[in-house]
Amino acid sequence: MNVAVDAMGGDHAPEVVVQGAVEAASEFGIDITLVGHEKIVAKALGAYSRQAHVSLHHCDEVVEMEESPLKALRKKKNASIKVAFDLVKKGHADAVISAGNSGATLAAGVLVLGRMNGIERPAIASIVPTERNPVVLIDVGANVDCRPAQLLQFGVMAHAFACSCLGMTNPKVGLLSIGEEEGKGNEQVRLARELFKKSTLNFIGNVEGRDILMGEVDIIVCDGFVGNVALKLTEGTVAAMVRLIDRELKSSFLGRTAKLLGRKPIERFKRKLDYEEHGGGLLLGINGVGVICHGGSSAKAIKNAINMAAQYVNNQVLQKMNLQLTTSKVC
Amino acid sequence: MNVAVDAMGGDHAPEVVVQGAVEAASEFGIDITLVGHEKIVAKALGAYSRQAHVSLHHCDEVVEMEESPLKALRKKKNASIKVAFDLVKKGHADAVISAGNSGATLAAGVLVLGRMNGIERPAIASIVPTERNPVVLIDVGANVDCRPAQLLQFGVMAHAFACSCLGMTNPKVGLLSIGEEEGKGNEQVRLARELFKKSTLNFIGNVEGRDILMGEVDIIVCDGFVGNVALKLTEGTVAAMVRLIDRELKSSFLGRTAKLLGRKPIERFKRKLDYEEHGGGLLLGINGVGVICHGGSSAKAIKNAINMAAQYVNNQVLQKMNLQLTTSKVC
Repeated sequence: MNVAVDAMGGDHAPEVVVQGAVEAASEFGIDITLVGHEKIVAKALGAYSRQAHVSLHHCDEVVEMEESPLKALRKKKNASIKVAFDLVKKGHADAVISAGNSGATLAAGVLVLGRMNGIERPAIASIVPTERNPVVLIDVGANVDCRPAQLLQFGVMAHAFACSCLGMTNPKVGLLSIGEEEGKGNEQVRLARELFKKSTLNFIGNVEGRDILMGEVDIIVCDGFVGNVALKLTEGTVAAMVRLIDRELKSSFLGRTAKLLGRKPIERFKRKLDYEEHGGGLLLGINGVGVICHGGSSAKAIKNAINMAAQYVNNQVLQKMNLQLTTSKVC
Repeated sequence: MNVAVDAMGGDHAPEVVVQGAVEAASEFGIDITLVGHEKIVAKALGAYSRQAHVSLHHCDEVVEMEESPLKALRKKKNASIKVAFDLVKKGHADAVISAGNSGATLAAGVLVLGRMNGIERPAIASIVPTERNPVVLIDVGANVDCRPAQLLQFGVMAHAFACSCLGMTNPKVGLLSIGEEEGKGNEQVRLARELFKKSTLNFIGNVEGRDILMGEVDIIVCDGFVGNVALKLTEGTVAAMVRLIDRELKSSFLGRTAKLLGRKPIERFKRKLDYEEHGGGLLLGINGVGVICHGGSSAKAIKNAINMAAQYVNNQVLQKMNLQLTTSKVC
């Protein structure tokens, strides 16, 4: 198992990315290839005495956060994210993770490894922890302006993924909208609804923002703009609440005592909803395993994303999804 | 002060709406006109012995949740939401609140009272409690498919509202998007960004989902689809976290003790982020005060929305906004 890590991608690259990689290698024993500029990455790597399982693959370009993905990849043939996927294509690595420009990660994945059979537009799926079962939210950022037919494709991919890799049977699929009633939503959602109704997916209709964390639907489909806003908002709300409850508890003697006594349950609670525990979003629809992390990922988030990528490879997510897509005709 | 309450609107109408109205009348001494079918509303009202300040105005039609707002209003001249705005027009009431079809509430407000000077498209603004100052999120559901110029109008209205009614000076305005970088976002946001940059609003650029609760921006502009998803998601996340932390604390002896000792801070924390405490969304851009509540509003939410509407009337929100819109040329 070898995971190619885009060492140059992310707001805190390469230092934090390298830290996460070193920790993943030492904690999970995963072989890691750091892809990036030799000198810069080697310097970040120099901070760690133990670097077993970690190697370095040089390339001298990087797609910056604000660059247009397609233009940048056309110009920079040697960009770290493209080189990382090249390693997978050549059989030197089994998966790619990146906290860099997510549009470029998607584009490089498609460019180098190609789309899965029958898939027009790959998308990013995020597994959102809820009170009950996890929910697959798709797309969380790959495609900002979508046609209704593309939303249906996202549902089909997520269905194949949920059945083959999350052990779900006939997962319930909902369209993210602003009211449960048939006529509610924008034009895109109203048209997509008709397509979902005609498919053989277990379509339960529109779901609302508040339903995401209820865990009563298994797959929630939306365009990448809405999905990305929703994902970041959920994380932001969780983080704000944790800070707020800490502050309220600290403000009185009884509160401080309660905080001390309730330390373990409060920690458990934080961990349950902590996105850093859950790695990144999975790139669905390309012929390979790609995990996309937040630009601002911490070392812990990178470490867990690497572990997640390795697990997908071990679980043969691609082979299982392909089988699911070819044997079940959901639309 | 008289607030016209659409007694027929909402998932739990008329019972819960009537309960909220009776409580608002008794707690705040606000005169209330319940607008709806005489027999149905009188029956719900019969549950309360003390009904001071509450009167009933009969009408025999209602716009259902799943109806198309414009079509329904054209057909049902005597719909409760339209009649409620008629009462304002005739000077019998000062404000309208409704938990019914929000599109119909908006449309009836425009139809009966007209748009404010210079405003093309009214929108719903929600005041979101954050860790610091409250944030004005606009639009949270009135306009699902918006042109970029309409987003700018929402910013202008929210600016006038925040300056005149929330005591803000030169509020910071952000566009809700999926990355802070200039090129990020869907087409609508990228085009709107150019318009905002040319305006004299204090435009700080794109903000992300996670920024909503940070309280570092004063006004966040988005279309009504994204805004409604965001608002409901925030509420859903807060509710899920409250349930989750309760469950974690209950699961151990120390946790239960902590819960008991920390009761007051935990209650304060819940109250701070409880949407029911903050009433509903304010209809900005019509010549009158209208407050739109969730379809699923509790009696407490209705009560607080009525109080909020009364406060806006007392604070002369309309007059102040008109003054602000005519004296400051922000675009």
